[in-house]
Parts: sequence; C-alpha cells; structure tokens
Amino acid sequence: MKFEVTILGSSSATPVYNRNPTAQLLNCNEKFYLIDCGEGTQQQLIRYGIKASKIDYIFISHLHGDHYFGLVGLLSSMHLNGRIKPLRLFGPKALLEILELQFKYSETVIRYALEFVPVEADHSRMIFENADLTVESIILNHRIPCTGYKFIQKKRLRKLLIEKLEEAQITVEYFPLLKRGADLTFPDGRVILNKEYTMDPDEPKTYCYCSDTLADGSYMAQIKGATALYHEATFLHDMLDRANQTHHTTALQAGEIAKEAGVEHLLIGHFSSRYKVLQPLLDEARSVFETTELAIEGNTFQI
Amino acid sequence: MKFEVTILGSSSATPVYNRNPTAQLLNCNEKFYLIDCGEGTQQQLIRYGIKASKIDYIFISHLHGDHYFGLVGLLSSMHLNGRIKPLRLFGPKALLEILELQFKYSETVIRYALEFVPVEADHSRMIFENADLTVESIILNHRIPCTGYKFIQKKRLRKLLIEKLEEAQITVEYFPLLKRGADLTFPDGRVILNKEYTMDPDEPKTYCYCSDTLADGSYMAQIKGATALYHEATFLHDMLDRANQTHHTTALQAGEIAKEAGVEHLLIGHFSSRYKVLQPLLDEARSVFETTELAIEGNTFQI
Repeated sequence: MKFEVTILGSSSATPVYNRNPTAQLLNCNEKFYLIDCGEGTQQQLIRYGIKASKIDYIFISHLHGDHYFGLVGLLSSMHLNGRIKPLRLFGPKALLEILELQFKYSETVIRYALEFVPVEADHSRMIFENADLTVESIILNHRIPCTGYKFIQKKRLRKLLIEKLEEAQITVEYFPLLKRGADLTFPDGRVILNKEYTMDPDEPKTYCYCSDTLADGSYMAQIKGATALYHEATFLHDMLDRANQTHHTTALQAGEIAKEAGVEHLLIGHFSSRYKVLQPLLDEARSVFETTELAIEGNTFQI
Repeated sequence: MKFEVTILGSSSATPVYNRNPTAQLLNCNEKFYLIDCGEGTQQQLIRYGIKASKIDYIFISHLHGDHYFGLVGLLSSMHLNGRIKPLRLFGPKALLEILELQFKYSETVIRYALEFVPVEADHSRMIFENADLTVESIILNHRIPCTGYKFIQKKRLRKLLIEKLEEAQITVEYFPLLKRGADLTFPDGRVILNKEYTMDPDEPKTYCYCSDTLADGSYMAQIKGATALYHEATFLHDMLDRANQTHHTTALQAGEIAKEAGVEHLLIGHFSSRYKVLQPLLDEARSVFETTELAIEGNTFQI
C-alpha cells in the first residue's frame, strides 16, 4: 500500500526564492491528504502535475498565515473547476469563520460539501478514521494554538503466497478467507493451514507531522516509535535563543527529539528565510540522528 | 519621468501553469503602486527581483479571490521583513474586516501603519493625490461591487534646454524659475525669454485599469483618451454569452472599447484558463484595435 509524502512547501514565515510556505501531500493508498496549505500551494500542485481534485482531506495545523493562506484560493479553485464531491477540512475552529467571511464578500456558494471538523488544541484525540488509516491530533507548543497530526495506517490483511496457492490449486474464492487468517478444510478432508500459504502483512506505518513548536518534548508520547517524523527545524542551533523566543525548534533539537522518540526517519523543514543553503541544517540534525532528510519541495518520501 | 507597468499575474479565476491571478505593479517616478494582488503575488515579486518593500500603495479592485487572495500574505511578509514605513491600501470596505480577522487569529500586530482607504463603488471620485499623480476610481459593472483605477500623471515642469542655457551663462539658481515658465530680467537689462530656453514638458499620461467588467461602456467617459488602457479580455468573442453571463469582456469587445475611447495603447489580460495559447485573443483584439498587447507576466510596458 502506497504511503508517501510529497513536499509542496518548506519555508517558514515568508516565501523565499524557490521555497514556498508549508504544505505537504500525503498519499495513503491513492487517497490524498493535504497537510497545511501556505500561499501558493495550488500553484505548487500545478507545478508538480498533481490534480487538486484528488485531495479529499485537508488538515491545517494552526492559523499563522504561512500554514493556511493558500487554503481559500485552493477551495475556491476546486469550486470553479467544478468539484462536486465532498471535501473534509480539519483545523482550528476560527478557520471556518475566516473562510466564510471571504466567501460571503465574493458571493461564492461552494457547490461541493465542505465538511469542516474543528480541531481543539487542548488534548490529543482521534479525529478521523477510514479503511486505510486513523488520524490523531498532536498538541504542539507554539505561540498560538497549534496541532500536529499523526497518520496511522491500519493493520493490513495477510499477504497471499500466490505461487504456492496455485500449486495447491486453491481458487480465488478462498482468498478473502485466507487474507483474514482462516485455515481451510475441504470436504475431502484436505486442510490448508493459513500460515503455510500466507505471510504477515507489512507492519502498519505511522507518519507524524509537527509543524511549528517549541522543542519541549511535551508531545513525545505521541510521536514515539513513528515510522517517519516530520519536524520543523526553523533555525540552526546557534539561534537557540531565537527559537525559544518564537516557539520554534533548531535542527539539532529536531534530531534529538527524533532520537528520543525512536523514530525510523526524520524529515526536517520550515526553514528560516535566512538560510539560502540548507546543508548545515541537515548536517546538524544528522550529527545526532543519522537518518534525517531535508523537506525539499517536489521531493516524495516513502514512509 | 518613469511611468510603466509590470505584469505580475494575468489569469482569471484560477491560476494555471505559468499564469498567476491578477496583479500589476505601476512604477511612476520610482514610486510603486500595486494594483490587485492575486494569490502568489509576493512569490511573483521575488521571481522578478522586485523588492516588496518598495511598494507604498496598493489598490484592490474587488473581492473576488483572484484579485486579492495574495494580499494578506504580502502584508504579513512586509511586517515579518521589518517594514516600518506606512502603507496605504485602497479597496472595498469589507477588505479591512477580512484582513483584521486573519491578523486577529494569527495574533499579528502589524508594526507599520496600514492606512486603509475604503473605496465605494457607487460613483467615480478622486481617491489619491501626490506630487506625481492623482488616482480616480472607475465604476465597473461586475457581479459584485468593482472599481477600476485611473492613474493620471500631473503636468510636469518645463524642460530646460541646457546647452543654450550654458551658452548664455545662466547658472543653476535660475533653473527652478525657468522650469516654472518665468522669463528672467537681469539688473543689466538683459532679458531671457522662457520660450527660448525651455520646451514644453511631456504631456501628462494616463493609465486606466479595468479589472473585471461587463463591456457595457458605462465607464467610457473615464477612460476616454487614456494613454494606456488595461482592460480585461477573459474570453474570445465566440464565448460572448458566457462573458455576458459572468459579467466579463471578450477580446473583441476590449478592442472596440479601446477604439471608442480613443486610447493610444490597449493591454489585455485576465485570460480564462481555457486558453493555453493567447495569440487568438491578441489577434481578435487587434482586428479592431491595432496597438494592443498581451499582459504577459514579467513584461513591463512603458505608458
């Protein structure tokens, strides 16, 4: 099952040449989840040849503009491009008020169902579930209420060993039973032991998205053992004071958090516009956590 | 005196590959006037190497998103980038309400003075004046209240014929008087006739910006004789019904309006996303008005 994230924006606060404000697109089993939506996200989708119509879920972490100023434009374009299927939007309660005010003055009546789910930043909870995954909010510590999101794949069905099944002339009508772990007993007494014809499914994977936060580890329990952690790393560690003051994280701290959480992979982003070259941020995070990558726009990471 | 306009966005409704929603930057005597501000305008400024800090005046025509969704991001970035000099913003009254709501929830206190001037769409009036120009609103006929803007250069001072003045040994302290048209009489009785040492200044130029409108000519009086007219031309004329229905203009109509108004140059833009190739729009407008150009992003037009 596909479980990958494409970076659409990686800059903090303001856009800078070649870096747009934060946005990511998660593909889980060919369903598309947009995570944050900085200004220009719809242009980034066009740039990377991704159809906005594929997106059915949008998660906004907080109401700083670099994480949501592209949302009203994207929602409007979906409307203008004839979308009719529903779209589910998760984010701070006030987000709906902001959108509705803009739709009111443009006299726009969105023709698809925009199902808004307010996300409180008081404590973590499960906010979404479908056949592929569940999503939980992560309570971050930023200057204004801010939630990250944890995308947890569901346990998959057992994998069939097709060649062995063909050899034993087991036909497809038995596959659903086998996938669910059942042994088969045929009328002639022949027994097919599940464990001999199937193998364990892939372990469910987890993607944690921590947009903007002080690196105080208050959200450690939730990111523990994640397959992949996206964590902001706005500054190099020589700017720790500035990071603390603005409730942001340094690259070194992001590495330390990934290490303490025991995640497999760390992805860092939300880079301050002061860094034209990002390698020092990567080096710093890797000095404590080797399997770190930079959230470079247009890149897709397998989780 | 410089009087030129740079196109930052030329698409209607939604961004399409290589075309951003409407925005233009007018440079009048090295003062910068942003006209409309679709999503991604600040990225376009970066792309074309234009410092946003140069902009001191912003004019928004109406509250359809393709004309202002980039504004809150631009204003926020100006704040984050340390702007302290005032910025004057002209636009529909509700624009301030929309901006203030977003600043409230992001807990942003803009550190420069944002001087908002509401522009009513009931009748045309002069809304701004400085040493270089005056600006009048143009009442357009769109689906929601919408004003264009007319930028009128002020009459300039007379031009000095420097070589002749040097020959006659007239020194610089007399130049301001000569520029203002005065004759000079020296104590020895020598008379310097202004008309022999100066020439007429360039005729004041006018730039009219008509963003979104039905081509009903209701605004004809105001655009009459303009040096340059920007007029939307969303559709080809075979889509006249759609143009009428959506209160937009066809390229042919834009040409006819330019002709009737007796302007010198026509610039067309706000192209529908259905047109990947723009030449047919240009050809159509030129079939009635020869001196037409396409508002291509990144291009600068001398007015």
